[in-house]
Amino acid sequence: MAEGKKLEGAGLRGQVAGKTALSTVGVSGSGLTYRGYDVKDLAENCEFEEVAYLILKGKLPNQAELDAYKNQLKRMRGLPAALKEVLERIPKDAHPMDVMRTGCSMLGNLEQEDTSVMGEFPQEMECTDRMVAAFPSIICYWYRYSHDGVKVETETDDDSIGAHFLHMLRGEKPNELHERVMNVSLILYAEHEFNASTFTARVCASTLSDIHSCITAAIGSLRGPLHGGANEAAMDMIENWTSAEEAEREMMGKLERKEKIMGFGHAIYSTSDPRNEIIKAWSEKLAADVGDTTLYPVSVRCEEVMWREKKLFCNADFFHASAYHFMGIPTKLFTPIFVMSRLTGWAAHVMEQRADNRIIRPSAEYTGEDLRKVTPIAQR
Amino acid sequence: MAEGKKLEGAGLRGQVAGKTALSTVGVSGSGLTYRGYDVKDLAENCEFEEVAYLILKGKLPNQAELDAYKNQLKRMRGLPAALKEVLERIPKDAHPMDVMRTGCSMLGNLEQEDTSVMGEFPQEMECTDRMVAAFPSIICYWYRYSHDGVKVETETDDDSIGAHFLHMLRGEKPNELHERVMNVSLILYAEHEFNASTFTARVCASTLSDIHSCITAAIGSLRGPLHGGANEAAMDMIENWTSAEEAEREMMGKLERKEKIMGFGHAIYSTSDPRNEIIKAWSEKLAADVGDTTLYPVSVRCEEVMWREKKLFCNADFFHASAYHFMGIPTKLFTPIFVMSRLTGWAAHVMEQRADNRIIRPSAEYTGEDLRKVTPIAQR
Repeated sequence: MAEGKKLEGAGLRGQVAGKTALSTVGVSGSGLTYRGYDVKDLAENCEFEEVAYLILKGKLPNQAELDAYKNQLKRMRGLPAALKEVLERIPKDAHPMDVMRTGCSMLGNLEQEDTSVMGEFPQEMECTDRMVAAFPSIICYWYRYSHDGVKVETETDDDSIGAHFLHMLRGEKPNELHERVMNVSLILYAEHEFNASTFTARVCASTLSDIHSCITAAIGSLRGPLHGGANEAAMDMIENWTSAEEAEREMMGKLERKEKIMGFGHAIYSTSDPRNEIIKAWSEKLAADVGDTTLYPVSVRCEEVMWREKKLFCNADFFHASAYHFMGIPTKLFTPIFVMSRLTGWAAHVMEQRADNRIIRPSAEYTGEDLRKVTPIAQR
Repeated sequence: MAEGKKLEGAGLRGQVAGKTALSTVGVSGSGLTYRGYDVKDLAENCEFEEVAYLILKGKLPNQAELDAYKNQLKRMRGLPAALKEVLERIPKDAHPMDVMRTGCSMLGNLEQEDTSVMGEFPQEMECTDRMVAAFPSIICYWYRYSHDGVKVETETDDDSIGAHFLHMLRGEKPNELHERVMNVSLILYAEHEFNASTFTARVCASTLSDIHSCITAAIGSLRGPLHGGANEAAMDMIENWTSAEEAEREMMGKLERKEKIMGFGHAIYSTSDPRNEIIKAWSEKLAADVGDTTLYPVSVRCEEVMWREKKLFCNADFFHASAYHFMGIPTKLFTPIFVMSRLTGWAAHVMEQRADNRIIRPSAEYTGEDLRKVTPIAQR
């Protein structure tokens, strides 16, 4: 609309589009806080389910609350038969994020959120808990069926979401180190203010649509290579290199050719991403554990070169690539893990939007044709 | 982020969030133009496929172009077996918008858009044409299977999308009047600038995600009762009343009790919705055709009461309710028809966003807790 107020930057950059009590990015603590807690503090001292509880229910749980929450999530791991049948019909070469998007959407058909009274959402927490429990089952059920021909058992007794995921994926319970790294990783990715996928979820929520629509929409946004997927792109790059020296040579060539290198820099952080040092330390531990002498040194050299040449720092994604790889996770499943984690932030934003809602309906600057008459088709 | 610039209104109202050459709302002509053409002019002189071509390909087609386009769409009506099998697993009591969302998402698994070169989208038009052709098939296949136990033939030789839809839904070819009204209806709903569902599609597109993700996300937004669905709510209201007098009495009661009445007023238009007089005239013709002496007079009385008492005008949705009803369309399929139409606007916005992209990533005003330390769980 021509009368709308013009904004200064494209992409609403730096413009406040709403309020949140969920997180700060680049403001206090080490640069990222969830409900006031520094992400480093949470990654050191909590498991993912504690952080999910914090984000979704507003406070850190005590032991009894955490136990009850984890038990509830355990009971919700099974998938309805119709959802399994849908997943069995998605081909092996599908994009795993399309699988997540479709699985979430189908779940919404089978377990529809009650939105019968406009503006009231009595089941939003229950539907969220269900998705938190079921998303690892969805991606692993599809992956194991399409790639290995196995109908994997999704109702395991694993203690945590991360262990449940690794168990289904690899067919055996993970060791303590792997379970711990999954916890840290899921904590680091859980919430990040008004990033594009979260903002997508909030725009959708602002129409008072159901929560499965909001999360399905957010998954679609996270799929974009400018958003999720940087850890996959980083892996695709570093797995080609057999030594730090080769990595340095190839990186320099890329920089000279001005190729885009994924996993570095950030839209909001300007000097470092607080999540990097955390996942980097765990990647180093995993490298020692598996006896790696290539991928971790290659990764470190990439970090050095990018900082030396471009003053660009590793973001959360870069050392996630090697960490996931050391745990035997196929590269194409990196972004679905991001979904399993960020789901908590998305759902909390949906609830926050609903609690103080106005439909998000901006205006546009018109750059098109002036008013004109339709010419009869015979004269065109 | 605390440093972001604060906006004045919630929901980005009146704030320009980007550029578009696709439409103007409330600026010139009768209030709504698509690529410079007044929507009244288009509704009088074009069929829907001409308008879809205009919106998607940038100009009104000549006869040869229109014929080729319609033939192409006809060839694309069939659904892959795996998609049919998915639709067969969605229960009868599912929300039809959830069916559309899932059908679109599944199609994206089976016919994935090529996004292998970042920022290049060689198949975006082909994928869009496919969705325009397949969406009526998706909703009718599910509806007829779940409600009538019929696996409906989706590959008909009907001349238009509107006729194809009515044919599958009712099992016989529609008459000329019904086909014409479907054309008008699909034209009226095709495009409307930065409404919430379109903005959802653009946010998703700004991550350079695939087009099925963008459209799936938009469907989820349109599902919300503050956005799509007003025509269904209007129908649910007026179908209870057996005379204009009863309608007046009940409306006055609702107004006294301050109940929300759907189908009136608009976020952008302030004195009238240009689409109302067009669909109202067609609803009157349909009433005469079916010999209705109740629903149309009831609708007219509602319009009079709302204007007299509240100076609120009918928006595009209100007379769509009676018009669709006279054509025998079940109320729960009203919003899916909206999808079949608005898909053209959504896809054109996705293409426009992609052509001059910056990721849409606004900031938030933080209202939460100050920095605090994690308390050990035993002390919580």
